[in-house]
Amino acid sequence: MQNEGGIQHDAQACDIGFIGLGVMGSNLTMNLVDHGYRVACFDLDQLKVESILDKDASERAADSAPRVVGCSSYTELLSKLKAPHLIIISVPAGNPVDHVCHHLIDAGIHADDIVVDTGNSLWTDSVAREAEYKGKFIFFSTAVSGGEVGARFGPSLMPSGNPYAWTRIEPVLKAIAAKAHPETGKPLESFIPGQPITEGEPCATYIGPIGAGHYVKMVHNGIEYADMQLICETYHIMRDALAMTPADIAAVFRTWNKGKLNSYLIEISAEVLEQLDPETNQPLVDVILDRAGQKGTGLWTAVSALEVGSPAQTITSAVFARSISSLKEERVAASEVLSGPDAVDYTEDEKQAIIVKLEHALYCSKICAYAQGFQLMAMAAKEHGWNLEFGEIAKIWRAGCIIRAVFLQSISKAYENNEELPNLLMDPFFAEQITQYQSHWRQSIAQATLAGVPCPSMMSALSYYDSYRTAVLPANLLQGQRDYFGAHTYQRVDKPAAKKYHLEWSDPGRPQTSIKR
Amino acid sequence: MQNEGGIQHDAQACDIGFIGLGVMGSNLTMNLVDHGYRVACFDLDQLKVESILDKDASERAADSAPRVVGCSSYTELLSKLKAPHLIIISVPAGNPVDHVCHHLIDAGIHADDIVVDTGNSLWTDSVAREAEYKGKFIFFSTAVSGGEVGARFGPSLMPSGNPYAWTRIEPVLKAIAAKAHPETGKPLESFIPGQPITEGEPCATYIGPIGAGHYVKMVHNGIEYADMQLICETYHIMRDALAMTPADIAAVFRTWNKGKLNSYLIEISAEVLEQLDPETNQPLVDVILDRAGQKGTGLWTAVSALEVGSPAQTITSAVFARSISSLKEERVAASEVLSGPDAVDYTEDEKQAIIVKLEHALYCSKICAYAQGFQLMAMAAKEHGWNLEFGEIAKIWRAGCIIRAVFLQSISKAYENNEELPNLLMDPFFAEQITQYQSHWRQSIAQATLAGVPCPSMMSALSYYDSYRTAVLPANLLQGQRDYFGAHTYQRVDKPAAKKYHLEWSDPGRPQTSIKR
Repeated sequence: MQNEGGIQHDAQACDIGFIGLGVMGSNLTMNLVDHGYRVACFDLDQLKVESILDKDASERAADSAPRVVGCSSYTELLSKLKAPHLIIISVPAGNPVDHVCHHLIDAGIHADDIVVDTGNSLWTDSVAREAEYKGKFIFFSTAVSGGEVGARFGPSLMPSGNPYAWTRIEPVLKAIAAKAHPETGKPLESFIPGQPITEGEPCATYIGPIGAGHYVKMVHNGIEYADMQLICETYHIMRDALAMTPADIAAVFRTWNKGKLNSYLIEISAEVLEQLDPETNQPLVDVILDRAGQKGTGLWTAVSALEVGSPAQTITSAVFARSISSLKEERVAASEVLSGPDAVDYTEDEKQAIIVKLEHALYCSKICAYAQGFQLMAMAAKEHGWNLEFGEIAKIWRAGCIIRAVFLQSISKAYENNEELPNLLMDPFFAEQITQYQSHWRQSIAQATLAGVPCPSMMSALSYYDSYRTAVLPANLLQGQRDYFGAHTYQRVDKPAAKKYHLEWSDPGRPQTSIKR
Repeated sequence: MQNEGGIQHDAQACDIGFIGLGVMGSNLTMNLVDHGYRVACFDLDQLKVESILDKDASERAADSAPRVVGCSSYTELLSKLKAPHLIIISVPAGNPVDHVCHHLIDAGIHADDIVVDTGNSLWTDSVAREAEYKGKFIFFSTAVSGGEVGARFGPSLMPSGNPYAWTRIEPVLKAIAAKAHPETGKPLESFIPGQPITEGEPCATYIGPIGAGHYVKMVHNGIEYADMQLICETYHIMRDALAMTPADIAAVFRTWNKGKLNSYLIEISAEVLEQLDPETNQPLVDVILDRAGQKGTGLWTAVSALEVGSPAQTITSAVFARSISSLKEERVAASEVLSGPDAVDYTEDEKQAIIVKLEHALYCSKICAYAQGFQLMAMAAKEHGWNLEFGEIAKIWRAGCIIRAVFLQSISKAYENNEELPNLLMDPFFAEQITQYQSHWRQSIAQATLAGVPCPSMMSALSYYDSYRTAVLPANLLQGQRDYFGAHTYQRVDKPAAKKYHLEWSDPGRPQTSIKR
């Protein structure tokens, strides 16, 4: 038996050790064996070890050899592996990762062995671990996107760490990753155990030094928040301003999914809107409470954007939209008290015209949300000394992850055409797209504004675009205010930027000398 | 000699010890002596001690006794004070505060002595210090707003800490604080040394347990960011959409300053716009570079809002507006490439109509920015177990600080009428104001949207209003999406909120079992 990397197995030794057999871990293990790797497995819970053996038995041909080997200790696991050892771990982020690492050291792991953490670790923790375990083994990490299904049949992987270790890990991660069609950018998918996709471009690329992969994954999630919120805002406008039913709106999303907006999120939005509640036979979406939860990654992206000074306002507005949604009781009470504009009765023709405009509004807003995500990564990379390849990052998001879409093919091309692209908006294709559709974008927002339907993320996307293309923003007045009340100084348009100026403002009521620095 | 608190001095002992004689410290000291306190002063730099002695000599009547006593050590400082000792410190935030505290312990400070930190300390540091110094002395802190001028002639003060200590500190801080007219809410100001304002309502109130005062000050600064940015956006629209000159715009601000928008920030905006550059004789604002700086408090407010889950999106958008302003070179390049709508030529009548609407747009947006700030304080208070009195907080912002405005009188009344007000928007006065002016607000934003002038903060304020008054937001679709791809579950409108539901979505392409939790 030969895996895709072409490594010859001997019958005894396993290619990979796997520690942590929760849902993600066991799915990643089955994904590995589907690609021809022989895996030695360990979990503190021996029932989980037995369970993965059963799973392997049920999925492989009756006459074939087991592809997983169960182990009852760290020592046994190491003894089953080819040297140098390659060990993948899938345990909860935080202390459990260090717990495993210390046990591996006690069990005799070598300095040239590699441990790949696949958990949702904080990126700065990974940085600390690489340093801590240096000389004992090589600590490497990869972010995994795509949830449980992705883990099993092809996730999007964002690995980062020691580049020499990467040469050893690369064939493994590229084998198990989701695959995208090189020309169309569409996901190539199979959900049949034992029949994995082996063609196409794998959604795994080396991101950079340890931690960079998890940072990029965090921004992916921030973009996901914005993408979902933008879709929800178009739904909201159709539902409340155009009085459309969920089925009508689903049909619109189905149409959009055939065009520029083709994406997993648009597709599942249509699915959700078409779904009936088995209990009441009502459209399920009307039964679901409008109180959004969050797991924190969108929030972390927003916080990082604020700290780095990158204007990721659409991502942030999506986080706040979830916050305000959670104030359900307050909103219901406010809806009885606070007034809005009168409803407008649109003709069928007017409705159709508005829907056409909305598609373009969503598209332009989406471009800006992604531009913000890539800008944030660029600014963070500069701060942390990473050399991120944005074309490759866009490529590995084309399949396996939540924001997968043909759209990412265009982003990838933009960065391939110009590695130094300062902003996605400056790519000729995207600049042209916005030129073409912006009047519809502006009209949609103006219409929602007058109709009283909130569209915070769409608005923030437009103001991002308009701010970015404005040579002279009103921050000159702001700097004047700041110098006036706080002697914070200003720069001059006609002098080198390095020089700071302060005026002795002729404030009639306040003494001058004390404002001086 | 008698101070306002009515305490009898003996000729030898000082009322207050002051440590740290930088600009803020020496101005606070002179403010204290203006109110009849006798102050013992110490600084590591003896030149600063001499300088404050000189200052006192130059400002008091030639035949009167010195009001400050210079000290050359911590021990000497303690020896000059009445017991129990009251010591105010003004040193850089961070280690220097602890440095001073440790020296005071070495010098023999008593358990019932009070040390008041007036620096820009992180609120969590103050919490830690109160605990650390318990039993050695009482650590108390107060945030000081109003800069150097405020420190000298009347700052807005936000004290927090041990409530028993407060009874001793209260008369001192209320004496030196800015004063507001109880009826109009307008600042009562004097900038003449030795002639302080003693009537009116002092802008100092006990905020709560240690740290609460600095938190409230942080939110004040976040609101300040939003207020400034909103003013800048109206300036931007007048400048770029209406082609008005700085002098024209100043005249509009002067008019606005006579009405609902009357405030220090509107006043100084007019001053800045009228100011000519002494060098070129051009309007100074046209010479100032549009690249805004920041000191971090706006950013901290935004981060706290994200963490607490309070939708302070207008405050946050103002922070991001500063970020994007700092990308000057990128914006100039983008302005050559990215297209916008064609400029519109307005008639003089149309211009005047737009200006009238803009005033109302700014006013409604401002209400929302303040509503967000107070909502954030309320949510943070809940999290930290503080019992903040919002009516009092609004009152102490009426004078001495940057956002001082008659507007705060209305906010104070709103909370006096209803201590349990869930949101400023729900106050009958503000609800009515927005009802009255919202059509102009909406039209202004729609017009700016179509004209291509960015107004991120105004937009975020409107979407905050419209989201808050929407009983059913589109987060139902969002929860459907999240349950679909991540089995994140949802609540139902027809079942108790505590229960979570998950549907086995009939996704044609993906296996069901593996999505299960």
